[in-house]
Amino acid sequence: MMKDLPLSKVYQLLEPGPVVLLTTARKGRANVMTMSWHMMVEFEPPLFACVLSNANYSFAALRATKECVIAVPALKLASKVVNVGNCSGREVEKFERFALTPVPAERVAPPLIAECFANLECKVVDTSLVNKYNLFVLEVLKAWTDPAQKHPKTIHHHGYGRFVVDGEMIRLKSRMR
Amino acid sequence: MMKDLPLSKVYQLLEPGPVVLLTTARKGRANVMTMSWHMMVEFEPPLFACVLSNANYSFAALRATKECVIAVPALKLASKVVNVGNCSGREVEKFERFALTPVPAERVAPPLIAECFANLECKVVDTSLVNKYNLFVLEVLKAWTDPAQKHPKTIHHHGYGRFVVDGEMIRLKSRMR
Repeated sequence: MMKDLPLSKVYQLLEPGPVVLLTTARKGRANVMTMSWHMMVEFEPPLFACVLSNANYSFAALRATKECVIAVPALKLASKVVNVGNCSGREVEKFERFALTPVPAERVAPPLIAECFANLECKVVDTSLVNKYNLFVLEVLKAWTDPAQKHPKTIHHHGYGRFVVDGEMIRLKSRMR
Repeated sequence: MMKDLPLSKVYQLLEPGPVVLLTTARKGRANVMTMSWHMMVEFEPPLFACVLSNANYSFAALRATKECVIAVPALKLASKVVNVGNCSGREVEKFERFALTPVPAERVAPPLIAECFANLECKVVDTSLVNKYNLFVLEVLKAWTDPAQKHPKTIHHHGYGRFVVDGEMIRLKSRMR
């Protein structure tokens, strides 16, 4: 169902700033959170950074296991994405509650999310700013896309439940990749 | 012309992942580059991180002066934003070449850009990952918006000259700010 995405193209998913889901697995239990504080750090191997509140249940799991999956949801999942963000894995089995389908990953223990149009298997590679800023640097080991989801529109958080949906794509003569 | 923006609202500008401009000033000369590898790190005081290629002329200026302005352009500036990214301050006086209007900032030496709908005066607060990842952590000292630009649409980079323009805004019941 999921198709390989070349690692050289991963930045095209994260650089535009979509709201994403982050899955972790600890002591045999998978969890998922909503996140949009992330940025690319290097093209290939793809490195990115993200900031998680240390109040999040996922923060401790990511710090302990050093593995996660970043799953990119399209607009149709928007209300689930918000609901995932409105509760904690301390109290809720989120995959079950929100009918998200965990799929085994290839390189890491946390699951992919079947309903997301892209999934990135990641390991933490730098924790030097975790204590100071809750900032992790991660490497994407393996990337997947769902070919059945054509031209997915992502959502971008503007605060207090306001999200901007992707609009038209324009093409300009950029020399940058 | 520009109006104060409360620092508590700065994350609403950067979190959605727009392409931004970054101005520096060194030895009396202002320069500007295009950037979209950035993320929020803390709400207030607003901290964000960004990654600049060390091949960029602005990289050395930011490292040396520890000051910049992040200017957020709307769609109408898209072709200028790409042109700014297609050349280097080593060869080009970009403000003049692309008819961008520098405006003195209040707290830092680099200029605001009059044509942008928001401008953030910033100082570098952490350089510990600059050598390893070209990653700077900055604090926003002062923020401005242009009240004449209502509902500006930003652009989001998808690689190779493809940019997605902001579409509709949706509202969902999020408990998150």
